[in-house]
Amino acid sequence: MNVSIINIGDELLIGQVVNSNAASMSRMLIAAGMEVTDVIVVADKADAIRESLDRALTDNDAVLITGGLGPTKDDVTKKVLCDYFHSKLVENEEALANVKRIFEARGYELTPINRQQALVPKCCTMINNVKGTAPCMWFEVKRGRRKPRKVVVSMPGVPYEMENLMVTEVVPRLKDHFQTGHIINKNILVQGIGESFLSDLIEEWELGLPECIRLAYLPTAGMVKLRLTARGDNRETLEDHIIREVKKLYLLAGQYIVGEDLETLPEAVSQIFRMNAKTLATAESCTGGTIASRITALPGASKYYRGGVVAYSNEVKEQALGVNHETLEQHGAVSEETVREMALGVRERMGADFGVATSGIAGPSGGSEEKPVGTVWIAIAGPDGVTTRLKHFGDDRLRTIERTCNEVFAMLIHELKEHLGKHKV
Amino acid sequence: MNVSIINIGDELLIGQVVNSNAASMSRMLIAAGMEVTDVIVVADKADAIRESLDRALTDNDAVLITGGLGPTKDDVTKKVLCDYFHSKLVENEEALANVKRIFEARGYELTPINRQQALVPKCCTMINNVKGTAPCMWFEVKRGRRKPRKVVVSMPGVPYEMENLMVTEVVPRLKDHFQTGHIINKNILVQGIGESFLSDLIEEWELGLPECIRLAYLPTAGMVKLRLTARGDNRETLEDHIIREVKKLYLLAGQYIVGEDLETLPEAVSQIFRMNAKTLATAESCTGGTIASRITALPGASKYYRGGVVAYSNEVKEQALGVNHETLEQHGAVSEETVREMALGVRERMGADFGVATSGIAGPSGGSEEKPVGTVWIAIAGPDGVTTRLKHFGDDRLRTIERTCNEVFAMLIHELKEHLGKHKV
Repeated sequence: MNVSIINIGDELLIGQVVNSNAASMSRMLIAAGMEVTDVIVVADKADAIRESLDRALTDNDAVLITGGLGPTKDDVTKKVLCDYFHSKLVENEEALANVKRIFEARGYELTPINRQQALVPKCCTMINNVKGTAPCMWFEVKRGRRKPRKVVVSMPGVPYEMENLMVTEVVPRLKDHFQTGHIINKNILVQGIGESFLSDLIEEWELGLPECIRLAYLPTAGMVKLRLTARGDNRETLEDHIIREVKKLYLLAGQYIVGEDLETLPEAVSQIFRMNAKTLATAESCTGGTIASRITALPGASKYYRGGVVAYSNEVKEQALGVNHETLEQHGAVSEETVREMALGVRERMGADFGVATSGIAGPSGGSEEKPVGTVWIAIAGPDGVTTRLKHFGDDRLRTIERTCNEVFAMLIHELKEHLGKHKV
Repeated sequence: MNVSIINIGDELLIGQVVNSNAASMSRMLIAAGMEVTDVIVVADKADAIRESLDRALTDNDAVLITGGLGPTKDDVTKKVLCDYFHSKLVENEEALANVKRIFEARGYELTPINRQQALVPKCCTMINNVKGTAPCMWFEVKRGRRKPRKVVVSMPGVPYEMENLMVTEVVPRLKDHFQTGHIINKNILVQGIGESFLSDLIEEWELGLPECIRLAYLPTAGMVKLRLTARGDNRETLEDHIIREVKKLYLLAGQYIVGEDLETLPEAVSQIFRMNAKTLATAESCTGGTIASRITALPGASKYYRGGVVAYSNEVKEQALGVNHETLEQHGAVSEETVREMALGVRERMGADFGVATSGIAGPSGGSEEKPVGTVWIAIAGPDGVTTRLKHFGDDRLRTIERTCNEVFAMLIHELKEHLGKHKV
């Protein structure tokens, strides 16, 4: 089943907003066993919308459209769709009740222009958008016998409104309409081994996978995600297959597996720390709070994260982390000695099982011959002592911060596993 | 001059990577006075690439392509372009020297498969990609008399390689080729007034703008960016016009203007703090390091940012910030009293002119009837005392963090301006 995505909005075309909707829609559609053939971004212009819809409908079973549904004069999607399907706009009771509810909750008065949000083409199925005022619209297009009708869905462009509609309404309805069968996805996060080495290591297992299971390598920040996708008519059989194959995978590559059904390294850190009831504190210089920010972006962070210090100046390193003045004088802020004292300091002061510290030269200035821009020291202090690591990440500030964070998360998982291994014996 | 963007890559279509390239390319093209008509994302498949190129070339003066240039079998762009332009692949000396240089620097041996990176269609102009091994290719297509030839440019999909090529080579060459004339952009960041109120306030000024200047409203996180674009043949005249109109704008809306030629609120904070030699420290609970992370993402942060504490647990609030145990017992962590002590504590301990603190319930759990999820307290301690603010940001964790950050940045600008105003008198 092929799907085309059309994202409408001048703000996307001028680069004011990055098109994250396409990525999150794709992920949901693919998890449901559908294929995304292309993504088209067009302006809020009737001609452009009509033309891209025409073309997308030719080659695909479904077209999902976002954006252009606001009440302002710039938003033309609804009118275009109404004309395209030779229909007329009528007020929808349920949609109107929803708009009224939202305006009441916000304490605003319902203006005539906002009441227009409740108008939808007569020929469509209105799907209520409980998170916002623009209704979702589902259109069907006849085609040859025995094939399900093609589907066009129009959703608002606000990410959390679109996501809620996709999860609760659109994806389930598409699965039902196109009778896509059962699909089970299993993600295994692998870290500490390059993609090609991993591929060699698990080659035989991959070749022996049952026909109903497909494997995808998804290399991403600092790790590889292996995605097993099982398709078939019997859910239980698929689940059995998946369980069996994942077991075999653990026997081959268990030492590199850091988590299941996770998307990112911080999620893996969260899982392993919480499962083992260990706590963490951070002392950041060059990463400037980004490690803390990634950790606390996930719900439940307070279960294992005690807190951190962003020690941007040397005085803060001394005062808030207890780094020795002499250490800073002798070795400088970007040194193994300093980062070691930072990690030990934050671990002790915040009463955590593990303390992690970063100090480096993110750039663009501040580099020297001895310590060029991109030089980063990392330390992890844990119950068994301190581990340090020196990295050189090049001259791009944001990439250096990003790569330092990934290195830290990978090291944390490794250190905690080492510690657990030692104390199991 | 119309441009179409084609981004090639399976990783984009499955949503593994968000298409940030399209946005950054659009911004650069628009700043150079070109118009982006659409963005198309297609798979690494010859048919799909050919078809989208065909269509994009029909309606546009230039087509910019990214991705699909790696040495692996999945990457087919180069072959497709070679066929499309009825050419053949030849080894390019300069490209080969570049590939060799990069492999030497990394200490890798040059394999035959990597040597293939130096092959380019004979008919194209090779543009050297100093940041990576895949060369950039510039093709020209004849069309009717007196019109410049259409242009197709193929670039690698790695963001920083593409960005470097766009800035140093592709955009200047496009401007030259299409003789786009002079263009000057001026961005004015406005904060603390809604878009519609701003529009009323400056309506007359907007109507009186000279013909060579166009105004765009770009509402974004927590603020509105006004972009003035002047086009014409004489650069000096354009500059004079812009200076004159900006002056008039300050007379009308000066109190809301927080910066010029900036993209974001953190940039405005950085500018105003550095210009006035004031320092800042942060104490974050619910924002968990995100304020610090946004500040330190910008070069030069160490010039004004002293550091911060991520006080996720109550013990850290007491120990690292000096919040009274009784305050936490009596009022709770999410309270005006606590956040006030956090701001004062971090300001004093880190020796900063301003200390900012956040404490709230980001969710999804932890809410109560009295303090529902989304409740956030913010405090700013400065030379003239403490300002606090209570906000309710709803039930989405990441949105609450995001909106709290924007509120904090806006408040910081406001507080610093107030302070400067008082002490000027």
